[in-house]
Amino acid sequence: MGSFWDGFPELERELEDVRTLILDRASTDDRDVRAAIEHLLSASGKMLRPAFVLLASRFGQAEPRRTHRVAAAVEMLHMATLVHDDIIDGASRRRGVPTLNATAGARTAVLVGDWLLASSVSLIVDLGETQDARALAAITARICAGEISQSTDRGVIHTSVRRYLRRIAAKTAALFSLSFYVGARESGCPEPISSILRRLGYCLGMGFQIIDDILDFRQEGARTGKPTGNDLAQGIYTLPVILALRTEGGPRLGSALRRPPRSSRSAARAAELVRDAGGIEAARRVAAAYTERSLREIARLPATDTRRTLEGVTARLLHRDY
Amino acid sequence: MGSFWDGFPELERELEDVRTLILDRASTDDRDVRAAIEHLLSASGKMLRPAFVLLASRFGQAEPRRTHRVAAAVEMLHMATLVHDDIIDGASRRRGVPTLNATAGARTAVLVGDWLLASSVSLIVDLGETQDARALAAITARICAGEISQSTDRGVIHTSVRRYLRRIAAKTAALFSLSFYVGARESGCPEPISSILRRLGYCLGMGFQIIDDILDFRQEGARTGKPTGNDLAQGIYTLPVILALRTEGGPRLGSALRRPPRSSRSAARAAELVRDAGGIEAARRVAAAYTERSLREIARLPATDTRRTLEGVTARLLHRDY
Repeated sequence: MGSFWDGFPELERELEDVRTLILDRASTDDRDVRAAIEHLLSASGKMLRPAFVLLASRFGQAEPRRTHRVAAAVEMLHMATLVHDDIIDGASRRRGVPTLNATAGARTAVLVGDWLLASSVSLIVDLGETQDARALAAITARICAGEISQSTDRGVIHTSVRRYLRRIAAKTAALFSLSFYVGARESGCPEPISSILRRLGYCLGMGFQIIDDILDFRQEGARTGKPTGNDLAQGIYTLPVILALRTEGGPRLGSALRRPPRSSRSAARAAELVRDAGGIEAARRVAAAYTERSLREIARLPATDTRRTLEGVTARLLHRDY
Repeated sequence: MGSFWDGFPELERELEDVRTLILDRASTDDRDVRAAIEHLLSASGKMLRPAFVLLASRFGQAEPRRTHRVAAAVEMLHMATLVHDDIIDGASRRRGVPTLNATAGARTAVLVGDWLLASSVSLIVDLGETQDARALAAITARICAGEISQSTDRGVIHTSVRRYLRRIAAKTAALFSLSFYVGARESGCPEPISSILRRLGYCLGMGFQIIDDILDFRQEGARTGKPTGNDLAQGIYTLPVILALRTEGGPRLGSALRRPPRSSRSAARAAELVRDAGGIEAARRVAAAYTERSLREIARLPATDTRRTLEGVTARLLHRDY
């Protein structure tokens, strides 16, 4: 789980419970499913989304049996999208661990992703909270639609900022937001608090994704484990590109991108044009605006230990370079 | 929709409504999603599962607005599995129409399948019937687990009949059964009737899948549009093979299958060994037993027009050669 939750031993313990819950669910179905899920969990990252569920639930009367299930459902949905992304990208490693795609083949990877999607909704539906199940199912569909639009936008240079923001809202911010919201609801938070948490999740998700997209332009992709200009090479034009195209250096970049760069060298060259045109700085300013909005939402929460934790997490997430 | 529902104009009209409902759902999300779904619907087959929902609902007080949604959800789940199957198999055509995989690429196909899965559950959850949503989500997970076990069984010759039956129960019969059951429940059928319908769906599904597997051994694969011995070539050993292995011709077949046949010619040769050993006839007897059980369940239903329709459908499905 890396060191992201160092200093939050209680949360780390709870996240361990969530992992166990996911594994247990997999065990009831089939030994092959269990093996696949075990493999995926061995490469699980920060487990941000379940952590958000757990943190949000502390603003109400958390009932661990329920909140842990909701947290597991949210992580399973996220895992499903990662597994399917790796198939789509033909990725062979994620966070240093071979992808399921690479070890078990695309066939099993497609099916395990489907199993995760179905089991995620199933976990929540079983709790009997129709509204939460509705939200989760709707957001799953939205994430897919967002990815489909990103997929058909590939190679289209002149995407508007608005379309980009809508895309990352569907792709990332919606699930961040849902995680906070269902955590709050499951623990019976008063509506004003759960609304603040939902907005916090949205802003945090937007800022997080923009920074993720910026990190794709780092000169050495060592810490993220992805090569520089990976998105560019796939014809995915993110905020730094969109904003760079509007500067003086825009036309030069535009002609360089007339077709998506095929080699990693030409991707690195295009990334340099984006940096030189000031695309990174401009994108950082947009991310900073979301960080500020996140902190403003946090300031409206009751002054508890959890609020301080959220401040710390926001700082770590939105000032990270990994 | 072919001619399967010829003679049932009312049902054909209702199925048309179901298709419209699916398309409408797709339209709310994204134009790219809509285009993909439109393409898929243009190649939709008999629409058995939604028809089962509609037929079952006639044993209660059907409320079209609800039953049509349930029927759409069930078909969307089925569509999702087909889309993902086509990616897995690298299929370029289905029912004579290019697969989504072939026209839009694996990337979009993975995502559209995911969108269908999520939207299917979402449609049912929106109806507020937790029990039905639970059943649908659970069955989706079960279908995936069944496919995963089929996937890891590939190339394993000595599968037991029991494991085969469990596999097709998960892959096909579970959703047939669910379709009848939710149709009945949504229209407020008394429990004894909905139990009969659920069992009918199960038996019909088992018989249907066994016949489907038998048809893979036809000498000319003209009507199914698949080459002879397609399953064999993929190392998927179905009931005819499993039963043929137990006959006098078994050892010869066993050594022929020591590795999955790679060329279509060697697949056709292995299929001939299965036929010669009497594997087809033996499998037909198992299918016939399920047909009989289906007819027995139907006989226990109230004697209505719908019951007669079900008798006709069962005969068409279980005596088909396409």
